This record gives sequence, C-alpha cells and structure tokens, in this order.
Amino acid sequence: MDIEQFRKAGYQAIDRICDYYYSLNEQSVISKVEPGYLREHIPLAAPEKGEDMQVIADDYQKYIIPGLTHWQHPKFFAYFPTAGSFESIIADLYASSVSNPGFNWSCSPACTELEVIVMDWAAKLLGLSPDFYNSSGVGGGCIQTTASDSVLVAVVAARSLYQRNYPDTKMEDLVIYTTTQTHSLGAKAALILGLQVKTLEVTAEDRFALRGEGLRSALQEDERGGRKPFILIATVGTTSSGAVDNIPEIREVVKDYPSLWVHIDAAWAGVALSCDEYRKELYLDEINSFANSFCTNFHKWGLVNFDCSTLWVRDRKHLTDALDITPPFLRTKHGDAGTVIDFRNWHLALGRRFRSLKMWFVFRGFGAEGFREYIRRCIRLNEIFVGLIEQSNTLSLVTQPSLALTVFRVSPMPESSNQAALSTQSLNELNRLFFGRLSSKTDIMLTQTTLNGTFCVRLAVGSAHTTEKHVHEAFALVSEEAKIALELWKQTFQGAAVVG
Amino acid sequence: MDIEQFRKAGYQAIDRICDYYYSLNEQSVISKVEPGYLREHIPLAAPEKGEDMQVIADDYQKYIIPGLTHWQHPKFFAYFPTAGSFESIIADLYASSVSNPGFNWSCSPACTELEVIVMDWAAKLLGLSPDFYNSSGVGGGCIQTTASDSVLVAVVAARSLYQRNYPDTKMEDLVIYTTTQTHSLGAKAALILGLQVKTLEVTAEDRFALRGEGLRSALQEDERGGRKPFILIATVGTTSSGAVDNIPEIREVVKDYPSLWVHIDAAWAGVALSCDEYRKELYLDEINSFANSFCTNFHKWGLVNFDCSTLWVRDRKHLTDALDITPPFLRTKHGDAGTVIDFRNWHLALGRRFRSLKMWFVFRGFGAEGFREYIRRCIRLNEIFVGLIEQSNTLSLVTQPSLALTVFRVSPMPESSNQAALSTQSLNELNRLFFGRLSSKTDIMLTQTTLNGTFCVRLAVGSAHTTEKHVHEAFALVSEEAKIALELWKQTFQGAAVVG
Repeated sequence: MDIEQFRKAGYQAIDRICDYYYSLNEQSVISKVEPGYLREHIPLAAPEKGEDMQVIADDYQKYIIPGLTHWQHPKFFAYFPTAGSFESIIADLYASSVSNPGFNWSCSPACTELEVIVMDWAAKLLGLSPDFYNSSGVGGGCIQTTASDSVLVAVVAARSLYQRNYPDTKMEDLVIYTTTQTHSLGAKAALILGLQVKTLEVTAEDRFALRGEGLRSALQEDERGGRKPFILIATVGTTSSGAVDNIPEIREVVKDYPSLWVHIDAAWAGVALSCDEYRKELYLDEINSFANSFCTNFHKWGLVNFDCSTLWVRDRKHLTDALDITPPFLRTKHGDAGTVIDFRNWHLALGRRFRSLKMWFVFRGFGAEGFREYIRRCIRLNEIFVGLIEQSNTLSLVTQPSLALTVFRVSPMPESSNQAALSTQSLNELNRLFFGRLSSKTDIMLTQTTLNGTFCVRLAVGSAHTTEKHVHEAFALVSEEAKIALELWKQTFQGAAVVG
Repeated sequence: MDIEQFRKAGYQAIDRICDYYYSLNEQSVISKVEPGYLREHIPLAAPEKGEDMQVIADDYQKYIIPGLTHWQHPKFFAYFPTAGSFESIIADLYASSVSNPGFNWSCSPACTELEVIVMDWAAKLLGLSPDFYNSSGVGGGCIQTTASDSVLVAVVAARSLYQRNYPDTKMEDLVIYTTTQTHSLGAKAALILGLQVKTLEVTAEDRFALRGEGLRSALQEDERGGRKPFILIATVGTTSSGAVDNIPEIREVVKDYPSLWVHIDAAWAGVALSCDEYRKELYLDEINSFANSFCTNFHKWGLVNFDCSTLWVRDRKHLTDALDITPPFLRTKHGDAGTVIDFRNWHLALGRRFRSLKMWFVFRGFGAEGFREYIRRCIRLNEIFVGLIEQSNTLSLVTQPSLALTVFRVSPMPESSNQAALSTQSLNELNRLFFGRLSSKTDIMLTQTTLNGTFCVRLAVGSAHTTEKHVHEAFALVSEEAKIALELWKQTFQGAAVVG
C-alpha cells in the first residue's frame, strides 16, 4: 500500500467508524455469533498474493463487527466499562503511525517526556500527593498495560525491597495479602511469582471492606507462624461490588508493620478522585499519607482507549532497584548521565507503546471540567437506576451502591408477614434463572457476581454514550425479566424452596 | 467531540500521517531535542476547560514530532526495526475504535476467534510444526505484548510445571539458563520472579552461539550442586550479533534432561523463517522437533505495528495450569462449557488489545509472497552493506553477518607487515571515538554493542522504506566517519596505543 492508497483506506476507515458510532444504538450489545463462527469465513492460511485493502476492509465489516461485543454501546453495563473517546482514537492513530517502542529517552524523547508530564497532570487531576509526582524526583508515575501488570510491578518491587531488607527470607515464606473481594489480579500475581497468597475474609456488614482488625489478626497469626507478609493489595472500588477497603484503619495497623508495602488498586474507582465530593469516601487523604503505590486504569472509566493503566509509586527507586538491567546495546549518553527517566526500568517489559499521547489528547479535549462532568454524569445515571431498584417490589440492592456501580438481585417480598425468609440457596436459584434470562438478551449486557455466597447481578454505568433513556430501558428490561423469572421459579419450585 | 468533529479530526490525522511519510526521508532520524525540552511547551496541569482538537493536533505537530526518533525512517538502522506498515495502521485504527479488552471469548468473540486463526496463519507462514497450531487443540499460539512478556510467560509455565513435577523443590534452587548473548529479557525475567539466572559463556569462534557441550557441563555442574535448572532461553538471532544458538546440539543434550523447558527466543530473526532458504540455518526442523515454546515479534521485523509478540507453546495446558484463575464475575456460559479459548489464561494480564486484526490486515495486504519479498529485500540490502564493508580498508566485520544485521568496527590495516596487532583496548578506544561521532549525526541511527569485550557497531536493516540508496549513503557516512575517527585517534594517541 502506498501513501495515497493509505489516504484512501484511512478516510474510509474514519467514515466507517463514524457510521459505526451513528448506528451503535441500534446494534445489539452482545454478539449473536456462536463459538467457531469465524472459521467458516476465513481460509486456513494467509493468501499467497496480497489482497486489495478494500476487500480486507469490507471483510472487517462483514465478519468482524458482527462478532464484537460493543463495549462502547450505551447499554453495555457489564464488567467495568472501557470507555473510549474520539479524542483517544485520534491520539492512538497518531501514535500508531510512528510505531515506536519508547523504552528509553533517546529512542524517542517525546514518548518519555510526555509520559512524565501527563502522569503529573493525572496525579493532579486525581488529587494525589505531590510525593507521587514525577516532578518530585523521588516518587513518580508510569503507564502500564493493565491493572494486573501494575500490581505485578508493585508486588515485584515490594518483594525485592523486602528481600534486600531481610536477605535471609525464604521465598516460600513470603505472603501476598488480598481479600475475598480483591480482583483476581492478586491471585494471578501470586501464581506468576510462585508466592503464597492469603485471602482475608470480609463481611457484608462491613460492605465487603477490609477492616483494620482483620488485617491485624492475620498479621499476628503469620508472625507467629514465621510467614512473611510483604504486601497488601488493598482495593478502592472492588470489581464485585465497588467496595472500598477501610484505608484509615489499614494505615493505623501498618504503622506497626512498616515493612508491609500497601498497594492501592483503584483500577475502576480511582478516576472518581477527580471529583472533590468523592475524595473523602475513597480515602484520598489516607492514601496520600502512606500508600506505597496506587493504580487506576484510565482505560476503564477514564475515557482513554484500552490499554492505559496508571501506576504511581512513592519511591521510584524501589522500582528501579527491582527492575533495572541495562545491557550494553541499551546504553545511551543521556541514560548514562542519569538526566532522564528510562521507563523500561519501571515496568515488566522493555518496549512500550506511546500511550501518553492518548492521555494528553483526552485531558486537553475534555479539560478537567469535562472529565469530571463525565464521571458525575455516570454516577448520576447509576443513582437513577438505584432509585428505580429501591422502588421495585421484586428487585433489591445487595449492598450499598458504589459510584456508578449497582449490585442487585431479585428478592421477592414475602407474600404475608407470616412467611419465612427464603434461603440463600433458594434465592440464588431464582437469581441464576433471572441472570440466565438477562444474559440471553443481546440488546443489553450485565454481568453476574457472588458476594459471600449471594449470587447477584451487577450494573456498571460508564459508556460515554449512555443517557437517562438507556438507564430507564435497562431498568424496564431487568424489571420485566425479574417478574418472569419469579413466575417461572414459583412454578418450577412450587414454593418447595421456601424454608419453613 | 461529536461524530462529525471526529470525522474532521480523523481526516486531518490521515492527511498529516501522509505528509509525515512523504517527508520522512527529509527528516533527521534522531530527534535533536535536549532532555527536558517538552516541559517548556506544556503547562504543569491539564487545562480546566476542554480545548479544540485543532489546537491539540497542531501541538502534536509542533512539539511531539520534533521529539520523536523516527523508527520508520529509511536510515533508521539502530536496535532492531519496528517496521510498521500502512495496513497495520489501518487495522489498529479499527481496533482502537471499538476499544475492547477481549479477555475471554464472550466479551468479544471476534477478538478471540481471529487470534486463534491468524496465529495459525503465522505458524504456517513460518513453517512451525502443526503441533503449535491452535487447531491442534493441544499446542497453540497467542499474542503477547513483547518478547519480554513472552519469555516471562514461558518461564512461569516452566517453573509451574517443574514445581508440579517436583513439589519439594525450593524456589532458591531454581535456575534459569541464558547465555551472555541472551537479550536482557532473560535476566529481567529472573529479577521479576526472584530466581537465579545462569549466564553461559559463548565464544567468538562459535560465532557467539551456545553449543551443546557448554550446556551439558553447566547442567552437570548444577546437578552436582543441587541446583535445578528448569528452563533454557535459547536464542535464534541474538540482539548483539544475530547469533543462532546451536539448536541441534541443544536438542541432543536435553534428551538427557527432559525436565528442562527450552524456550526459543527468535524475537527478531523468527520472521525470516517465512523464507525457505533461511530455515536450515535457523534450525527450524530442530525447533519443531522439541522446543517447548517459540517466540517471534511481528512488531520488529514483521510489518505489524508495535506491539505484537507471538508466542507458541507445544502444550497449552502448561500455560493454563500455570495461569488460570477464573473468579465468579468472569464466568461465562461458553467459558464454563470449555468450548472456547480464554486467552486471559495464556498471558500475564487479564485485559488484552485486539491485536490479531493488525496481523490479519498485514498478512492479507502483503500476502505471504509480499511478506517474504520484504524480508528478502532487507537481507539483500544488508548484503550490499556487508559487501562494502568487506571492500573497505578501515572497516571490518566483527562476526559473520546475520540476515539483515551487520556488526562491524573500525579496524585499521597495519601500516607495514612489521607492525604488531593493536590491543583490544586500543581498538575499543578507537571504536568508541568512531561511534561517538556516528551517534552525534542525526540523519542516521545505528547502535553500539560489545561482543566478549570487543566494542562494535550494529547496523540492522528493517524499515519498509529503506532502499539501496540509503544503504550506500549509510556506508558513505560510516566510512567517512571511520576515516576521521582514525585520524583523530592517531593524532591523540600518536601511536602510543600500538602494542609493541
């Protein structure tokens, strides 16, 4: 393809992306294809001769788009959003056009320098302590691939620090602390590193937040057992229910355990720190006062296209002490002089995409004000949904809603005050039936979860295209399906499941 | 930004990318900016109000482009290439427009299914054994971020397998095998995982390839010492000199050590397997017969924009046994039924970009024929450079050229046959002077390396825009600078460095 053919294909791609967004509302959210659908349309090997871009682009429309789940769809309420933006697509296009693994300063100064700057922009937007700014020269922030990578980097840094401080520690004794509500990234980091993980229990009464007392008794128990907890992955906004670990209590406990690194995983909720009114409930002051590392994903609820996970550390030296390897062919005069940051020593891989450009375009295109307005709109939309649930006879909240996330389930009112409560198992059966029906719909997408044994359904608002209308439609559908599920369940179980 | 504003900004971006490529030849390869240059142009915090995209796009031209090192430039001969293509940029634009972390089948069927298919296309293009095809149902391939991630995944899978087979093994006894020529990814994987690494010596006589004997005696020594080597990272095409470890000899040795996982890192050279005539020297048959995992980066010398590292394993179960964690909120009906691949269990993170689209567009746009033609053209261009070096009085090859990579240095002819050879140290001084001059040029870019103490210069051909003319220009410049360096060095050292 020559430059003029690229221009033509590029214009067409832009036009087709416009068409895609114009039609998004009419598309089903969930792909209707069956496993293996694509094999029928694609040959078993690459063609021998090059094909015309027009044919390829048409095949994308014909075979790929129907196989997509539309994460930008206004009625995508599943998982957490990956809320992209047009600003971000444009930035990524520029970045892609100069394909460039900016692993050190000299191999593309702009990549490093822009990242240094926009990570400080982001830190300021979120109200992070200046200790975390790159301009501090001590702490700093760096873009990672995903929150899993961010936590892995933090765990590696923490382990390396612990082993330097206590060189006789056996790997087998090291323990990573998580809770039952920590994202699977905690367990995965442990699998990857071959380390033990301790999963602390949390309760519905505490809204699934880790409390100080639970942490302290676990630490004491491990101390007695000779195990070495070296990092706690605390969560601000868990995946299942948006729970926020009790950071103030955690801070008090770790005062007595200064060698315990505290990583704050705020992959989803962290961007809400951009709004003053959520800083208290998300414990910003406490995070700022003691957390060793903090992560939020701008590619989730932050308008930056996937991938863009932002990780800040209070002491960059702990990253470079753990990860710095400089072979001869990577020596450069600036790197050797120590005047510039080589981000390759702040993450797992060597090469890295030019992702700061997306953050720059988004922050400038929206402005801090526009960014906050978007966050507030999502939360407001979720509050509308919560209001409707609260008025419902069939649906109820399972736990307090969190920002733009609601966890709910079908929970029938007792038919008479004499009727006993339904068992968890019985309610779970009902809700599995309910979710089974919901997930067979293709014009909306929600996900399931289980909270301490309670099966429930999650709705997370995040698409930049979601409006009140979509939330009302979502509620109408959920409400309708709840009624049908309830009816079917009553018929099937004929009240047999009601515990006497 | 609304859809029509996006169309406008998108057209403009496409036009500006065309301008960029039209002018690439005239740009300096290396950015002329000084460390800290960008701080002067960018405010300290994000703007409060959103800005017009035109202003942002103009700032990209004004402040970012001058800070880029142009990896697509025809005279970029540094590191290894990240040879992008227009096909790949278009594909990435489509992928970016549907921002989509395809971590399991149902969260976007096309992402998984296309990856399953194009990884088989790639395996066939490279001549890999059907054992590695996804369609085998046993082995399989998956896109990773970089070769560092690929190796980390392989090491984790190997360690996990070893620990399952030998549950009493202490982490402290585990050893990763590399050579002095292994990419820093080997040492970094060890750092990340907190494991020992053994760096085997290789010699110039063996062209920096690992031989069977060296491997065997290291294994025997570790066996005696109670250490547990569990993975060898063998390289096909090292970074410093393109050396190819002696895979046939390695195969013979590991027959006696069946619990040693062999990972083949062919990050750069692997794509040359697409051409029949290089399969023998790159030991394809032997790799196919026993390697546990194989990696090449299509984002290096494979026309796919960064990032796109491809990893194949002979047994996918070793990946999922090591990495599978399925929490409730990730349960899906297809995943639970086991009918589809969930690639999240094949890599470190959870979310993943839709990168198979880039491979699909590139393979179709170029065709297998066009892909091979590009590889052959790069090698031919390098051969031209090698021919010129061989005719030179001042420059000489340090080791046999490898595919599209040449390692050379200034090596003056003795002025008389009585004159003794120069010491390594003295020649290194000369070559550092030479490379210092070369790296101060901004219209060409090469990198340095050291091969068993010999300081040398690398030239790697790879940009899709490089032609014979650029190679001749590169040689002319290198030749000229070699003469000047030699002159300066003679004046400075006045022959003092000549060892009597």
